[in-house]
Amino acid sequence: MGILDSVNYPRDIKKLPLSSLNVLCSEIRQLILDTVLTHGGHLSSNLGAIEAVVALHYVFDAPKDKIIFDVGHQCYAHKILTGRKNSFGTLRSDGGISGFPKRNESVYDVADTGHASTSISLACGLARACNDGEQIISFIGDGAMTGGLAYEALSDLACSGKKQIIVLNDNEMSISKSVGLISGYLERLKRERVTRPFSLFNLKYIGTIDGHDLKALIKAFNKAKKSGESVIVHILTKKGKGYPQAEQDPEKYHGYSVTAQKNPTFSQIVGEELCKLAEKDGDVFAVTAAMASGTGLDVFEKKFPERFVDVGIAEAHAACMSAGLALGGKKPYFAVYSTFLQRAYDQLVHDVCLNALPVTFCVDRCGIVAGDGATHQGVFDISFLRALPDMTVFAPKDGKELRAALKWSLSYDKPLAIRYPKGEDCVKYDVHSAISLGKWEYLTSDDADAVILATGAVCVANAVKAAKILKDKGINISVINARFIKPFDCAILDAIAGKKIFTIEDGVRTGGFGEGVTVYYAGKGINADVNVIAFDESPYPQGSLEHILAVTGTDPDGIARKIIQKVKS
Amino acid sequence: MGILDSVNYPRDIKKLPLSSLNVLCSEIRQLILDTVLTHGGHLSSNLGAIEAVVALHYVFDAPKDKIIFDVGHQCYAHKILTGRKNSFGTLRSDGGISGFPKRNESVYDVADTGHASTSISLACGLARACNDGEQIISFIGDGAMTGGLAYEALSDLACSGKKQIIVLNDNEMSISKSVGLISGYLERLKRERVTRPFSLFNLKYIGTIDGHDLKALIKAFNKAKKSGESVIVHILTKKGKGYPQAEQDPEKYHGYSVTAQKNPTFSQIVGEELCKLAEKDGDVFAVTAAMASGTGLDVFEKKFPERFVDVGIAEAHAACMSAGLALGGKKPYFAVYSTFLQRAYDQLVHDVCLNALPVTFCVDRCGIVAGDGATHQGVFDISFLRALPDMTVFAPKDGKELRAALKWSLSYDKPLAIRYPKGEDCVKYDVHSAISLGKWEYLTSDDADAVILATGAVCVANAVKAAKILKDKGINISVINARFIKPFDCAILDAIAGKKIFTIEDGVRTGGFGEGVTVYYAGKGINADVNVIAFDESPYPQGSLEHILAVTGTDPDGIARKIIQKVKS
Repeated sequence: MGILDSVNYPRDIKKLPLSSLNVLCSEIRQLILDTVLTHGGHLSSNLGAIEAVVALHYVFDAPKDKIIFDVGHQCYAHKILTGRKNSFGTLRSDGGISGFPKRNESVYDVADTGHASTSISLACGLARACNDGEQIISFIGDGAMTGGLAYEALSDLACSGKKQIIVLNDNEMSISKSVGLISGYLERLKRERVTRPFSLFNLKYIGTIDGHDLKALIKAFNKAKKSGESVIVHILTKKGKGYPQAEQDPEKYHGYSVTAQKNPTFSQIVGEELCKLAEKDGDVFAVTAAMASGTGLDVFEKKFPERFVDVGIAEAHAACMSAGLALGGKKPYFAVYSTFLQRAYDQLVHDVCLNALPVTFCVDRCGIVAGDGATHQGVFDISFLRALPDMTVFAPKDGKELRAALKWSLSYDKPLAIRYPKGEDCVKYDVHSAISLGKWEYLTSDDADAVILATGAVCVANAVKAAKILKDKGINISVINARFIKPFDCAILDAIAGKKIFTIEDGVRTGGFGEGVTVYYAGKGINADVNVIAFDESPYPQGSLEHILAVTGTDPDGIARKIIQKVKS
Repeated sequence: MGILDSVNYPRDIKKLPLSSLNVLCSEIRQLILDTVLTHGGHLSSNLGAIEAVVALHYVFDAPKDKIIFDVGHQCYAHKILTGRKNSFGTLRSDGGISGFPKRNESVYDVADTGHASTSISLACGLARACNDGEQIISFIGDGAMTGGLAYEALSDLACSGKKQIIVLNDNEMSISKSVGLISGYLERLKRERVTRPFSLFNLKYIGTIDGHDLKALIKAFNKAKKSGESVIVHILTKKGKGYPQAEQDPEKYHGYSVTAQKNPTFSQIVGEELCKLAEKDGDVFAVTAAMASGTGLDVFEKKFPERFVDVGIAEAHAACMSAGLALGGKKPYFAVYSTFLQRAYDQLVHDVCLNALPVTFCVDRCGIVAGDGATHQGVFDISFLRALPDMTVFAPKDGKELRAALKWSLSYDKPLAIRYPKGEDCVKYDVHSAISLGKWEYLTSDDADAVILATGAVCVANAVKAAKILKDKGINISVINARFIKPFDCAILDAIAGKKIFTIEDGVRTGGFGEGVTVYYAGKGINADVNVIAFDESPYPQGSLEHILAVTGTDPDGIARKIIQKVKS
């Protein structure tokens, strides 16, 4: 029987001796390892933060004191210590507990988060709101300090006079190796033993602290707790701590997946193809915001280091800097997850589209992102990209078409977004027509009375499967690969105007592809029978892709059911 | 005859003696004053930058060297010196030259800009793109340094090894008095004569330089030009320089308007009403991103300084910090221009809506913003707000309804956006029904066979005018104040389903209000006759409100013409 057996809430650890706390950390580490290696999840960052999280709960008095985990990649130990030890085995599963902080799971989770650099900002608000002696603590990695939002918050904090504690979890990594100003500064700081290291930020400083030394952590946190002013506690941790493979290659073990890879991922295809473009054209640049490996650009980085730019977790700058590259005559490709492209919305509008610049956005992790949940679903990009002036939006049905689109993009001279899902390119098609602006393609014969307009790899594959289900039931339906989400293929739309039309997309309904098709006909005064299959406002649940598609009725069976209902009515 | 008479391009000043340059500056100052005091425009910032701009063009070799004006509030002297002296009298007018940098006006304008904090980021891209010895210069105010994008760019610059020159135009102001970390730091720096002031940013430093001393400026810029590494030139300028009224109250003379005010503006109404709410409820906070005066919050700041937060030019933080306030049980109101709310898009999604927090966005300057042009039009917010989960969007028809909506918002416990245009509350209505979630109101009798669904103060007023024009022509049409853009009034929509329906909104068509109405009926299988009047993708031209409404066909005559066409067909 271990110590963890008797620990369910923070109060259970507050009277433990230091030796027991050390054992507790080992037991938590083992539980995290067992769970993640079986079910998948975020490994390296969670392993690195265990001692710090235990020390935080030992010193502070949550939930009265507010501990905000930036992003949330390091909250597993916190979950285990705050009433979720027994449900920890359901991590990231269908209907299970989230891998990120979630207010509806526990009062100990201060905010639902999943994006980087928000914690100090949220803390600025909480510190202004709380007046009952609550301690407000943000736990933020050095990687997340690259984000402009963290700086904006530090700027506010420097003037607000409201106390908060920033635990700077310095592991020299974001997901990849950290880059940027703060990273370089922290390195100099450690090397040169600077005495007033954060004078610019006007912050009292405690550090550096060994982030795996419980005694030192507890002492530092107690000092911070007693401080009358805002303070930064600079702790040094090792990503992957306690699991040698992860310690050696923390990036590889950032997100651990239990399924073996069989085909190249869409991200890998983008990386490969951009390398080919870069070989052919010396103006091609690849840009990432701390996601070289996740977006498949790691191969580009190796081959063309001088034309590869990693700006750190700084999507707004990545987009704006790409606009600068384009102004200078270069051909930039910014590969970014759909949900993080949201952080560059104004740069899309103001810097790229209003300047009509040939920046290509390789929008990865579009649609449903299995496991991560609401904060990571790539479900808004269709809506927000379609409304932008001069923006073209393309969604390939498979890897081959993704390659073709990237080749085509080289000579396209306007803003362009190419969107594709997380995962492998595993469905093969017979049809591969040449890419031409605004041209869709039939994947089946065009003689059916009903048509599915499907957009993107996941939806096209499911539409084809649905068509087969329907065929077995005697219903003939054509499937069209609506690969240009903007502009539309008006010739096809006009030709099918009299048929029953079903649109299927992996994004929110409002302002999406299907609604675009609906208003296309309405605008021409045509009474078309358009049935939109898309995601309703909420929820965007967590779980496997199959589970989420099933509960949202966008899996092949769900699509077939909806079509049967309409065709028979 | 003055020196300016013989100056049309930068080459014309390069051989002038210093004494002539001083005279030239006086003449430019006079031309700017004459023009702005007659036609309106940005005064204080432009007057403060004249000597620096002349010195930049004296030292550097534009357009080969790239001078990027952050925001663009200080580019008038640049325009006068780069081929636009003779057209300067058309500044900001219908079809005239823009008050901001515009690539289609001149090769000397590097990028179309209008939002803050982008220049160093664009420069990072240009510096990577340009390999022919071009100097890349960003001219940025201390106020714009608060924006996270500037920090993200500085972080990239610290590592890129690509030279750029940052001219930090320190006038201790954004539009209001500067706040935040950089501002406090610059103050300490000036006071304490720090020797390596920008060590954190890894930048060579030249300063402080009197920004009105041409000789000192030229010397500093030459030194920066010769530098092999990136350098920051810190110049001290006085906003409004040379015009005593503007020197004394630069905020008042930031944007100079030549029309006299007759009624309270919508912004002023928001300021007043929030004060009333704050008196009633101790949890009410007001938040601004460096726009206390523009958004009408200056009165709130005076009355409730402890519940007023100005975060500087940092919209993302303003939104996220507001989420933090709401998490702490407070009731925050973030007043922000529509176009600048774009900078907080991810905070809307991730921090406010996914957490379903009761943050109210007072979205000012919605729809057409006269004078400023494309970068300032508030035309995207309807589209991007409608697609957000749990977001409610309200657009009052007049000031009285704006007050009512703000009162109503106090007990509303979800994310809410209240959108209203720039300008005065000058149209009076007889009808004022109580606010109730999702309820619209008839402004005329409901018995006509055609209906206008108008949303927002400008569109409702124009719809009523259009209805009068139509009445004179014998066409009876009802006008409905569609004040809730989300959720819709389904009872009214169902009741009018058989009529000719016209929607009118001051936003982009794609994903907007009218398209929402169209798909509402389509989703119910109703073949309604919905005609959407909205802005097409481009252009969003510059000029007076009347001019832009006329060219986009959304003025009363344009609306009436469109309706006649449809009603008669």
